[in-house]
Amino acid sequence: MRQTIRRYSSRPVSESLLQSLLEEAARAQTMGNLQLYSVVVTRDAEMKQQLAPFHFNQPMVTNAPVVLTFCADYHRTTEWALQRKGHPGYGNFLSYQNAATDALLFCQRFCDLAESLGLGMCFLGTTVYKPLEIIRLLRLPKLVMPVATLTLGWPDEHPAPTDRLPATAYVHQETYAPVTPETIDRDFAAREALPENQEFVRINHTETLAQIFTDIRYSAADCEAFSAELLQALRRQGFLE
Amino acid sequence: MRQTIRRYSSRPVSESLLQSLLEEAARAQTMGNLQLYSVVVTRDAEMKQQLAPFHFNQPMVTNAPVVLTFCADYHRTTEWALQRKGHPGYGNFLSYQNAATDALLFCQRFCDLAESLGLGMCFLGTTVYKPLEIIRLLRLPKLVMPVATLTLGWPDEHPAPTDRLPATAYVHQETYAPVTPETIDRDFAAREALPENQEFVRINHTETLAQIFTDIRYSAADCEAFSAELLQALRRQGFLE
Repeated sequence: MRQTIRRYSSRPVSESLLQSLLEEAARAQTMGNLQLYSVVVTRDAEMKQQLAPFHFNQPMVTNAPVVLTFCADYHRTTEWALQRKGHPGYGNFLSYQNAATDALLFCQRFCDLAESLGLGMCFLGTTVYKPLEIIRLLRLPKLVMPVATLTLGWPDEHPAPTDRLPATAYVHQETYAPVTPETIDRDFAAREALPENQEFVRINHTETLAQIFTDIRYSAADCEAFSAELLQALRRQGFLE
Repeated sequence: MRQTIRRYSSRPVSESLLQSLLEEAARAQTMGNLQLYSVVVTRDAEMKQQLAPFHFNQPMVTNAPVVLTFCADYHRTTEWALQRKGHPGYGNFLSYQNAATDALLFCQRFCDLAESLGLGMCFLGTTVYKPLEIIRLLRLPKLVMPVATLTLGWPDEHPAPTDRLPATAYVHQETYAPVTPETIDRDFAAREALPENQEFVRINHTETLAQIFTDIRYSAADCEAFSAELLQALRRQGFLE
């Protein structure tokens, strides 16, 4: 069963293996076969050092043999069209949505393929928190936007799988079933009762597990501040014109 | 090698198989283990008929045994927090981005698992073109936004795989390598030379392959019109407050 891997052995990830996985991942669904994505491979230690603060100095960025930054990319397609007498018009939000979708499907297919060979990875959601810095460091041109980062290597740990909500929480038949106090209790009770989550509440000095997320980890103030930077980055990259 | 499947046999997709695939897909990476997604399962013939026009009447919607609409979902998490004395603040763009990411990773992992069992599917990118109608039909509450649709069934066709660009087009080492007329020729020549693409140009009465995309299929005017509806839907669902 898959699990996030944050510690990696010293065994290298060969360039030929990485290339073949990326090529196979590119079989993922893509809009009009345009492959509206790019991936930037970071192996250089100095580059990892520079990238780390934009991911809040999570140690995997410098410790993993490979860091992959997946980008929504309409730049290549636009340049192709300009070279071929086309009239590209992708400086808009729909085009960002389509390219981000392509990039995330490509990224997850890469994860599934890499894990099937025993590689381990950690998905860094922080990519969209400091996009302007990542854009500068990786020299991403207009119409290229980082949307996901993976740290990748051979596992040096075997963590137990974390829990998941029961399917009743997220699978709806025909229409969206209303969320009520009763369905909340039904779907969250097991998670809230886990000893590790009760300990998590204790050390965070909150009354409930939910408060750790809404009041500490993903607070409204933080979400609003990071939203502003994310929208600024989309504007800078030309996706909100 | 995977390929989009648009024709399905009469063999049913059992509910127990679908449930087990969705539960295994939920092992995908998810932000803070919050599982910021939902999926609406459409099996009812009448619902498929109503859904079809929002996907531009692509015949797979009514012909497939199952249609799955994957949604970015902060509603359930918000309701949970409100029931548990939390202070959720997810009516912002960053939160949409995070939930859409969770939903798309979940969707692609589902695809990889379903394909490994021989199921076939078609990914409908049209989901974000008519979101307001889909929201109404599936009764999606605030902070729930449809981001992807799959039609699913056992294959009744075995199409040849479509081409993909060479990895040089989308894999960059350390920094984004500039796109130039030379790299365009290097990366697009094989695609442009394919007999089926030359035929595609002929029947579309364009001069180049790129023009089919920029001038006909994904024109600037269409992208801008659909962008406006997509942003309106995000506003209506409370993600741009």
